[in-house]
Amino acid sequence: AALAAAREDEEEKELRQRFMAPPVSGLRELRRRRREVRSRMELLIMETQAEVCRALAALDPGASFAVDSWERKEGGGGISCVLQDGEVFEKAGVNVSVVSGLLSEEAARQMRSRGKSLKAKDGKLPFCAMGVSSVIHPKNPHVPTMHFNYRYFEIEEADGTIQWWFGGGTDLTPTYLNEEDAVHFHKTLKEACDKHDLKLYPKYKKWCDDYFYIKHRGERRGIGGIFFDDMDSPSKEEVFQFVKSCAKAVVPCYIPIVKKHCHDSFTPEEKLWQQLRRGRYVEFNLVYDRGTKFGLLTPGSRIESILMSLPLTARWEYMHNPPESSKEAEILEVLRNPKDWVH
Amino acid sequence: AALAAAREDEEEKELRQRFMAPPVSGLRELRRRRREVRSRMELLIMETQAEVCRALAALDPGASFAVDSWERKEGGGGISCVLQDGEVFEKAGVNVSVVSGLLSEEAARQMRSRGKSLKAKDGKLPFCAMGVSSVIHPKNPHVPTMHFNYRYFEIEEADGTIQWWFGGGTDLTPTYLNEEDAVHFHKTLKEACDKHDLKLYPKYKKWCDDYFYIKHRGERRGIGGIFFDDMDSPSKEEVFQFVKSCAKAVVPCYIPIVKKHCHDSFTPEEKLWQQLRRGRYVEFNLVYDRGTKFGLLTPGSRIESILMSLPLTARWEYMHNPPESSKEAEILEVLRNPKDWVH
Repeated sequence: AALAAAREDEEEKELRQRFMAPPVSGLRELRRRRREVRSRMELLIMETQAEVCRALAALDPGASFAVDSWERKEGGGGISCVLQDGEVFEKAGVNVSVVSGLLSEEAARQMRSRGKSLKAKDGKLPFCAMGVSSVIHPKNPHVPTMHFNYRYFEIEEADGTIQWWFGGGTDLTPTYLNEEDAVHFHKTLKEACDKHDLKLYPKYKKWCDDYFYIKHRGERRGIGGIFFDDMDSPSKEEVFQFVKSCAKAVVPCYIPIVKKHCHDSFTPEEKLWQQLRRGRYVEFNLVYDRGTKFGLLTPGSRIESILMSLPLTARWEYMHNPPESSKEAEILEVLRNPKDWVH
Repeated sequence: AALAAAREDEEEKELRQRFMAPPVSGLRELRRRRREVRSRMELLIMETQAEVCRALAALDPGASFAVDSWERKEGGGGISCVLQDGEVFEKAGVNVSVVSGLLSEEAARQMRSRGKSLKAKDGKLPFCAMGVSSVIHPKNPHVPTMHFNYRYFEIEEADGTIQWWFGGGTDLTPTYLNEEDAVHFHKTLKEACDKHDLKLYPKYKKWCDDYFYIKHRGERRGIGGIFFDDMDSPSKEEVFQFVKSCAKAVVPCYIPIVKKHCHDSFTPEEKLWQQLRRGRYVEFNLVYDRGTKFGLLTPGSRIESILMSLPLTARWEYMHNPPESSKEAEILEVLRNPKDWVH
């Protein structure tokens, strides 16, 4: 027993050093309920945050992540890690949040995209929501923007039933198309999915193309990846393992692409096109993104962490239309008609 | 009669030269129904567009307005005038649109902020909507951004009753506070309002502060001006005359402020603060502005004209908080707690 306790202390010390900040629920509490998926998910999102931050920081030695731990008055809190105006990254944010409290039936319904009905006691539903989310905007227009988010929800109904589900995804937004990068990104995601079920990648690839659609432009935000929500089968354990595979795939998906292009030379015209694409990114996030909208409307949410996803700079030009068969038109074509990258 | 006809031809020729492009409804048609308010309003918005464009172009001699006339498949069209990347103006757009067609009861309800019920024939309501709208983003951070919009709606109910109303407003968004400018701007608007009814300015000044509220920031977009919607009393003629006074006040409100500051020197830090404020402008327009949201959701609307209101460039920094008692904090204070500028 003494030996086990010593090993646990050792593990705790190691986690403390590895994470960007102490976890919201506290290491002791997480250890106490270590068998529960919500504890293992909290450790996974903390680990993912640390892994991604370290991998990015290693590529941008002059810059470093600012780490803010914050609390939410209504319950829970988070850890925001942001690197701004580095050599390689214009803005890179990796955010963890673990919040809990009471939801109105209406708010609970809105959280589930399928809008399942939920039976509340006195109109209020205890909930717990946690996730890691990140947007990386590099400086060089030949390095794409990357976004990922993995999240877990629990809602307790009046009769004590716990409704739970996972959501998430990883997607890429290049300024210019590089087919090799697109294939590498999608293949890496497909491999992560295929370990669990061969049906997942095609389904979640399509969901991603459908979700990141800027309707008023008739364009997708980027070249996609995977996206899913409301995932609650085959079992909590199996979905958790799937989400873990996806989270572990973030670094191998993206970091090789950054390394490959971060020293590419570029012209002022290429930088300008990047800025215009950044404007579209802002349009999607502020007009359509469910997470952003939900965050902006939720009292007590941390605006700086929600809007961390916006680029450092963006541009809107009236009637900018790239010439036919230019590199700019090439990426637009793919954003208008998503491609299958892995078959 | 021949004399009258000659005078009319002369007038038409003059209008043709004065306007930025031929009016959507055609000069002949407008002459035919010259007594109707919708014709007089169309001439007023065309005149306002031309007046404002000319006044702006005179201050930015190197630049000129691109003029696009466009048609809407579903009925009507518009004229967009945009000056981009000039010496004085970063982006200045003045847009006229005159559209008509059929609305669903739901869409018609959404158009009126008070949500009056409308009785449709076969679920469809013939409507006509016209307006002039403009956003001017100057380069120099000491010259404020200005927005105005004046519009007129008609909806025909099943029994032939025409519901009509006017809406509009003019408001200012400075990067730094200049009290003298704020007072001049509000006084000029107040004078325009006071000619019609002393109650209008205080009511519409408050409406403006309430409308241009960026809820998630706890800030207004700017230092206000006037804003109104659903105005349908005391009579169509009187409301038209009021709107005309407001439209005529745009140039005297704003142009003296541009002239006063367009050669002010500024620091890179002041330019940076302007870019951050531009980011807030984007947030308001994409997240809250009813006109923008309505436009983005309306099939067949011209996206380039709707998003003309976005600045050429904008910036988002994580956790940017200006130091206490700085000039940046001074304007934030006024955006958080709107002031009374004319008493």
